[in-house]
Amino acid sequence: MPKKVIIIGAVALGPKVACRLRRIDPDAEITVIDRDELISYGGCGIPYYVGGDIADIEGLYSTTSHAVRDIDFFTNCKGIEVLSGVEATEINRKEKKLLVRHLKNGKKDQFSYDKLVIATGATPVRPPFPGADLPGVFIVSNLHHAKAIKDRISKGQVEKAVVIGAGAIGIEMVEAMTDLWGVETTIIEMADQILPQALGKNISRIVENHLKENGVNLMLSERVIQINGDGKGGLQSVETSNGTIPCDLVVMSAGVKPNTKFAVDSGLAVGRSGGILVDRRMKTTDPDIYAGGDCVELRNLVSGENMTMPLGSLANRQGRIIATNINGGSAHFKGTVGTFCIKVFDMGIAKAGLTSKQAEATGYDPVHSIVTQHDRAHFYPSSKLMYINLIADRKTRRVLGIEAAGLKGDAIKARVDAVAPLLKNNIDVDEISELETGYAPPFASAMDIINNAGNTLDNILENRNIPIDVLDFIEEFKKGKTRVLDVRGPKEAKPFIEKYGDQWINIPQAELRSRIKELPRNEPLCLMCDTGPRSYEAQLLLRSNGISDTKNIQGGYGMLMVTDPEFV
Amino acid sequence: MPKKVIIIGAVALGPKVACRLRRIDPDAEITVIDRDELISYGGCGIPYYVGGDIADIEGLYSTTSHAVRDIDFFTNCKGIEVLSGVEATEINRKEKKLLVRHLKNGKKDQFSYDKLVIATGATPVRPPFPGADLPGVFIVSNLHHAKAIKDRISKGQVEKAVVIGAGAIGIEMVEAMTDLWGVETTIIEMADQILPQALGKNISRIVENHLKENGVNLMLSERVIQINGDGKGGLQSVETSNGTIPCDLVVMSAGVKPNTKFAVDSGLAVGRSGGILVDRRMKTTDPDIYAGGDCVELRNLVSGENMTMPLGSLANRQGRIIATNINGGSAHFKGTVGTFCIKVFDMGIAKAGLTSKQAEATGYDPVHSIVTQHDRAHFYPSSKLMYINLIADRKTRRVLGIEAAGLKGDAIKARVDAVAPLLKNNIDVDEISELETGYAPPFASAMDIINNAGNTLDNILENRNIPIDVLDFIEEFKKGKTRVLDVRGPKEAKPFIEKYGDQWINIPQAELRSRIKELPRNEPLCLMCDTGPRSYEAQLLLRSNGISDTKNIQGGYGMLMVTDPEFV
Repeated sequence: MPKKVIIIGAVALGPKVACRLRRIDPDAEITVIDRDELISYGGCGIPYYVGGDIADIEGLYSTTSHAVRDIDFFTNCKGIEVLSGVEATEINRKEKKLLVRHLKNGKKDQFSYDKLVIATGATPVRPPFPGADLPGVFIVSNLHHAKAIKDRISKGQVEKAVVIGAGAIGIEMVEAMTDLWGVETTIIEMADQILPQALGKNISRIVENHLKENGVNLMLSERVIQINGDGKGGLQSVETSNGTIPCDLVVMSAGVKPNTKFAVDSGLAVGRSGGILVDRRMKTTDPDIYAGGDCVELRNLVSGENMTMPLGSLANRQGRIIATNINGGSAHFKGTVGTFCIKVFDMGIAKAGLTSKQAEATGYDPVHSIVTQHDRAHFYPSSKLMYINLIADRKTRRVLGIEAAGLKGDAIKARVDAVAPLLKNNIDVDEISELETGYAPPFASAMDIINNAGNTLDNILENRNIPIDVLDFIEEFKKGKTRVLDVRGPKEAKPFIEKYGDQWINIPQAELRSRIKELPRNEPLCLMCDTGPRSYEAQLLLRSNGISDTKNIQGGYGMLMVTDPEFV
Repeated sequence: MPKKVIIIGAVALGPKVACRLRRIDPDAEITVIDRDELISYGGCGIPYYVGGDIADIEGLYSTTSHAVRDIDFFTNCKGIEVLSGVEATEINRKEKKLLVRHLKNGKKDQFSYDKLVIATGATPVRPPFPGADLPGVFIVSNLHHAKAIKDRISKGQVEKAVVIGAGAIGIEMVEAMTDLWGVETTIIEMADQILPQALGKNISRIVENHLKENGVNLMLSERVIQINGDGKGGLQSVETSNGTIPCDLVVMSAGVKPNTKFAVDSGLAVGRSGGILVDRRMKTTDPDIYAGGDCVELRNLVSGENMTMPLGSLANRQGRIIATNINGGSAHFKGTVGTFCIKVFDMGIAKAGLTSKQAEATGYDPVHSIVTQHDRAHFYPSSKLMYINLIADRKTRRVLGIEAAGLKGDAIKARVDAVAPLLKNNIDVDEISELETGYAPPFASAMDIINNAGNTLDNILENRNIPIDVLDFIEEFKKGKTRVLDVRGPKEAKPFIEKYGDQWINIPQAELRSRIKELPRNEPLCLMCDTGPRSYEAQLLLRSNGISDTKNIQGGYGMLMVTDPEFV
């Protein structure tokens, strides 16, 4: 008897389960149902469609060989039945039957199954402030939304847009609207930084400045109060705790919520983070029902806690595992370390593991190093600065997380991806110092930034390097609580001395040994060089000469420049 | 009593030991000696200096902040004594004294030490064929050679050059001379492929074609017999087993040999691969003498065998470890998995672990998958094809190696670096299928090439995917031993049908289910699509319909195109 498998949801995970299962079980009867007619699309590509990188919406549901992934494609190429416009209404788990409703005519139907797969995804949250449901206020969840937004923009109906929520989708939509279309865009975020789930403030600040450089109006620590219509079917403005922002279009990207109602109604367990509970085989609490993708919760392999992580890459890998297991195999999805990357204008940002804040909340005692370094050998032309934040637990030295930003996205990805797969293995800082990645001058330094991030964190953990974050330094400096010893050359230091007077001391590295006596001995001193290593050496030299109340500005001038362009 | 530490060798490892040691022990008396006046340079940058990417040779021995790393720099900035023009002649190990000779005046001297570090590096091999020592025949080992070569080229004295040996330095020198200077360059290699220590033939062939595309004359399986002078102090030609190549300059890059004479003479043990034996703490067989860098041998953590691995990145990391240990710490250098990368014109190539050949020699039974895929989501503009070869042991499924090539070097590095640090952990293929790397459309596919390399290898190991390498396919096809079933569209297949007649069958994927009966049932068939997945599906479909004598061309048309441009 061929196995009957029904899959609810035809985007990302659903089709992946279906196609893999067809390949390993040529006889299975595989049916995929979806409410929508548009199926099997790359939802993550929506901002690039809106932004014009992808000209036609078909690009998002075509294969690499330009075949359109519609119902015929699944029938003819894959041998898989897809029923669109069909909504799952109930599972009769005892009799293993799925009840459905055809959306066109309301007709009801039922299918018996041997195995059922729930791939219902997640839906963007629409915060309940007044005006949230006005026309012109969009969420970005499927291709219909994408089309509607791009239609308005490309018809010239949008001069000013507001994006609510500075998570990944919000930021990608901001770039899409600003970059190609020249829409004047404001992004409003409740937290005091962008990407609060992904990054600590040191790296997020770099990205925030890059957004501003690219003309984006960034409003942090700001609450939306209501959205006002213009009374003619359009929008007038967004009102926040601090003012009114005129706009013609609003994109809501305040996070997503797993679509679990159907699972809950069927008596399947849902976890604390709101996703369907699955075991390592991606089985729900019913052994004949699997679930995966944006609607389930996953184990965070660093914090040990469950979380939802709506990401196409995880969905695809889970899909393969579900198919293997339906076919009698035993494949495991162990969880995630939250690896993430994003392009923001010319910048690439990547992270894995926990932020310092998340690490603290989990009960760790996080310590971090920030390293500024070139992405190629420093003598190689076209090298650009990269910024890495590496986080470890003070006592155990376990590496908890890594964040990176820089102008060469693939190079940023290379550094974080080299660490991400190790994070679940409970590695310590020495493994980062010793990380063996590829070296050649056109691609890396002999002591690569990633190794140096480990070395620096080792020095900090050993209390050899007493660091201060640039953000904290700026605060203390502005309050007059510290002076600076700048060990760069006089030319580099000159504008700072002109600006800050005798709060800014300059002794170049080469003269420091002979001029130590010039330094104040009993007051706080922050040490600065280009990127951090020389000021660290200065700190050691000063300490061995009895000057101990010093802090080394992490990432040096390179970090200062991208953290607070007005300071420099 | 301050510790007396003497370091022999002032390039890469030596200065790293000295500087790190100074930082962690402000009191140590640190002396570095070197025969040369030019010290602490980035030897790996030489090809980029010759090729003009780096304008001045000072660029190779300056810091990121443009300080020249000369003797004064080490004295003033680092508090380290450097003696140049000094050669170590003998170690009196009992009395812990180092005997030296001043090269300028022949004067002898001696220093007592508490700890000694040998960082004598490696020297390029000069194969002993006639003419190998003619002027105009260069090795590339230090900045003097670099200067001499660049001088000749920039003065217009070099129209034709021959490079002997297609290892990393040979290839980098070829690019340097061809790309900027337009020198007509021939590269001669004894093996039947370039980079024989780093790559298998499937990936090396891609790079070989890229060299040819860039005008390089590539001669494989070729032996040099002698080098002929022109009788006027210049060169005339290089004679090989197959002919005579006129040239004005020859670069020998036939590998390097660790400089161990001094260690051997001092009674220190040298290993089978010719490098000084060191333990995990980088100690030689004398507990007061450390060694590291190009002159030692290291454990290959995949093969378990010792090897030399002259690479600046390893030297730097070992240097830090030696300093930590001299200072009473306990840091370990466990070995290497041979991670390697190189830029060749517009292409980036990276590898880690063993090639199939090396794996076999070690006693493994290697199986590999070759995957062609885009480096971004396929719908994202500017995406380019990448090529990955993933190797595992048949029985244990242990991952043994990975090789990759493509036009975006950083993206290639990202894939290999994500796997390299795991190789020492004895991971199996499933870990590659499940590898968690960053995903966003501008940087990766939802199912990234690296995961697909794992999936494909899993399918091959499970005997679901019966593959054939492109090189083997071409051979069989040309002998008439197989026909092709091309499941791409008629437009893509047309030129092949025109060229190869009925040896080339085209049934597009969407029609295959209904047209299976048209296919020959009892003869070998190689299956092809764009990059591999559709032909794999076709293979499964055919098998379930009783057609089993099929092979899936690994990497599809994408791989065929870069392997044998004349075939397509």
